[in-house]
Amino acid sequence: MRNIRMTISYDGSTYYGFQTQPKGNTVQDVLEEAIRVLTGEEATITASGRTDAGVHARGQVINFETASPIPVERWALALNSRLPDDIVVLQAEEVPLNFHASYHAKRKTYRYGIDTTKFGDVFERRYRLHVPLPLRLEEMRRAIAHLKGKHDFTSFASTRSAKSSHVRTILDARIEASEGKLDIFLTGDGFLYNMVRIVVGTLMWVGEGKLTAKDVKRILEAKERSAAGPTAMAHGLMLWEVQYDD
Amino acid sequence: MRNIRMTISYDGSTYYGFQTQPKGNTVQDVLEEAIRVLTGEEATITASGRTDAGVHARGQVINFETASPIPVERWALALNSRLPDDIVVLQAEEVPLNFHASYHAKRKTYRYGIDTTKFGDVFERRYRLHVPLPLRLEEMRRAIAHLKGKHDFTSFASTRSAKSSHVRTILDARIEASEGKLDIFLTGDGFLYNMVRIVVGTLMWVGEGKLTAKDVKRILEAKERSAAGPTAMAHGLMLWEVQYDD
Repeated sequence: MRNIRMTISYDGSTYYGFQTQPKGNTVQDVLEEAIRVLTGEEATITASGRTDAGVHARGQVINFETASPIPVERWALALNSRLPDDIVVLQAEEVPLNFHASYHAKRKTYRYGIDTTKFGDVFERRYRLHVPLPLRLEEMRRAIAHLKGKHDFTSFASTRSAKSSHVRTILDARIEASEGKLDIFLTGDGFLYNMVRIVVGTLMWVGEGKLTAKDVKRILEAKERSAAGPTAMAHGLMLWEVQYDD
Repeated sequence: MRNIRMTISYDGSTYYGFQTQPKGNTVQDVLEEAIRVLTGEEATITASGRTDAGVHARGQVINFETASPIPVERWALALNSRLPDDIVVLQAEEVPLNFHASYHAKRKTYRYGIDTTKFGDVFERRYRLHVPLPLRLEEMRRAIAHLKGKHDFTSFASTRSAKSSHVRTILDARIEASEGKLDIFLTGDGFLYNMVRIVVGTLMWVGEGKLTAKDVKRILEAKERSAAGPTAMAHGLMLWEVQYDD
């Protein structure tokens, strides 16, 4: 057996998320079916992490074992010709058999995209949340700075989170503004369920003047989901990059 | 009666072009229906020009007459709430009754978008032609420079063009390159049927090494459609901006 690692990108608009589930129509289902058609094998994919329904990925990382003799440099093209046009394999490489896309992920970066134009940009409508209200950018930047470092992020986790520890380290948190757009980037050693979307929902309240940057520090310390803002919609979220130590 | 001018944007992916036609499902049909629902009037829209099936618009300009008392500053929001999410009204203003979106258009800019990444960017797949081959950018820039100025563009017009004169003036022609993307911008006093797409199809041949920049000068002088390259696919084309003298 060989262990293949791939970087993939997908438009999550029409999928019920990454991970296989009874309703079907997931990114994992489609990828495993393409591998089955290509190799005849029933491979099981492991991803760096799940993405929810409607969430996109610029650089998701997956791995799977295969006995197929197809040279690694041919996998991307071979699979892309069998995948729908909203899922693309960007890179494939052979990795040691013990490599695991989830356990070995060291840092993940998510981007949440906001469309700040008055009536919305039709070409970004699937990938950005449309917020036509004026946002207090500098206050949002002061707010997001409070999240950097090692904290208990219980306030920013779905109450459905099943993780035993809610302590995570945010290595970088920044907001890039360009004409008609805000890009919120969060890099961390891991994220809790809905964490980025709750951070963004809370930042929107800061931007709209419902909360101050200082309130975000207080929310973090409260360690209670009800202290934070709403969960921002899925379609603005994109798994940007996953980094490994190798 | 009042004459209303609007700037609109649309994702042309699912439409049979701008102009009303027997098959239905055009941008014009959808806009006229939204105006009918809003005002009860059977307005007829005039656009700065048609766009073909699959072609997009960032800034198309239209006008129509109305007896509706709705204040002009409310038109954009009122129509947007009645339009599908792939058509958006960006601006509305009252103009003199003799204003005509097509006759009075002085300059139009089109953008043709190319995705030069190896396997394609899933988030740009509806708006850019995917060309994974290496392209000779500097030779393409030398080629496009030959098109600037006043010329007979018969070589770059569909043989179905019904215009009596094929003389047009290209005011600006440039190629912007960024990571994984090429943007070809053409600004002119008018364009013949399929002209931008034939220019781009020819530039692709220059980029791929099938033609030189000097060949483009020769093609222009041939005044024959068969001298030029192919018609590039519709989905990379976007009507970028229309300018008027007012």
